[in-house]
Amino acid sequence: MIFYFAIQTVSVASQIALEEAGADYELRRIDFKTTEQRSEEYLQINPKARVPALATDEGIITETPAILTYIAQAYPAAELAPLNDPFGFAKLQEFNNYLCSTVHVNHAHKMRGSRWVEEDDKDSQQAMTAKVPQTMTDSFNLIEKGLLAGPWVLGENFSVCDCYLFCISNWLAGDKVDINDFPRVLDHHLRMRERESVKKITAIHGI
Amino acid sequence: MIFYFAIQTVSVASQIALEEAGADYELRRIDFKTTEQRSEEYLQINPKARVPALATDEGIITETPAILTYIAQAYPAAELAPLNDPFGFAKLQEFNNYLCSTVHVNHAHKMRGSRWVEEDDKDSQQAMTAKVPQTMTDSFNLIEKGLLAGPWVLGENFSVCDCYLFCISNWLAGDKVDINDFPRVLDHHLRMRERESVKKITAIHGI
Repeated sequence: MIFYFAIQTVSVASQIALEEAGADYELRRIDFKTTEQRSEEYLQINPKARVPALATDEGIITETPAILTYIAQAYPAAELAPLNDPFGFAKLQEFNNYLCSTVHVNHAHKMRGSRWVEEDDKDSQQAMTAKVPQTMTDSFNLIEKGLLAGPWVLGENFSVCDCYLFCISNWLAGDKVDINDFPRVLDHHLRMRERESVKKITAIHGI
Repeated sequence: MIFYFAIQTVSVASQIALEEAGADYELRRIDFKTTEQRSEEYLQINPKARVPALATDEGIITETPAILTYIAQAYPAAELAPLNDPFGFAKLQEFNNYLCSTVHVNHAHKMRGSRWVEEDDKDSQQAMTAKVPQTMTDSFNLIEKGLLAGPWVLGENFSVCDCYLFCISNWLAGDKVDINDFPRVLDHHLRMRERESVKKITAIHGI
């Protein structure tokens, strides 16, 4: 498999999951500074011009929640998801989908406001940036008070949700939110940093 | 099961899937006009104050992609997902996640801009509304040219993705995008409208 990623992006979540799975994969770095994600070559991999993308023998998979559950299904021995429990699997999906459709979207309003207003409308983009600390705080209040079952996201068993939460909780400082306001999230974050998978991937990303 | 929904929202996708599955469920309508989604009672069901939510014997599931795959797994005889094919399932997830994290989010900038800027910043909210036709067009170009394999989203087999695409393609007119610009999406939409499940649910929503 080939994993296409960019430094200090949501790629971190899937990369940690690949390590946790013991997967055999190659890394292919996409350079956002030269907007390589919009190159003809990369648009063949992912026409959405985003990372990550996972090239498998059968084809390419994009979207973090899809990659995470694929890894869990492709490496069942790693027990990264409750694969034989539809309700447990739904709770995993619910968590991952909250991160991708609400929390990551909140965060994206800091730097990527031009997705949703005109490129030259700097006032609106600044207004979006200004609200990010509040929206990220609201989201992490929900995670702190309920979505994070503890000690791991889904309870006693580690899962791909933990890789994803670690990745996004690492954005809080840059979003001007103090992770210390969320003691359970902080505890989770610190326990993640003790794992070999996380040490390896955070070194690659310099985070 | 109890399905909590609101009229003319993304609830439509999961409701069609419940019908396709032949599921036995009760409907419980949440009234957005009285902001019932923020009532103490409903916050017990879904602290995110959103619809839909599916109450099962084991607990409550939120987030459309999570509900859709749960329905597919709970009613395997309906064959609403490639459950025994990790790559096929990943492609289902990829499509549903693109709809929830990009397309639904684009659409939400029309009316829900106050999620991402201050409530009284009407200029920025208008700027967001103004870009919705373009972002929805961009998203549906991707769907038209590739993500919709045809005749159904995943190819020859109907799946929960089709319920979701129908729901969102029905928003195009309100977003000032002409569905006729996307002939394959239009064809899909019209074939969906012939299904008994869709006739039943569109009648409830008046769409």
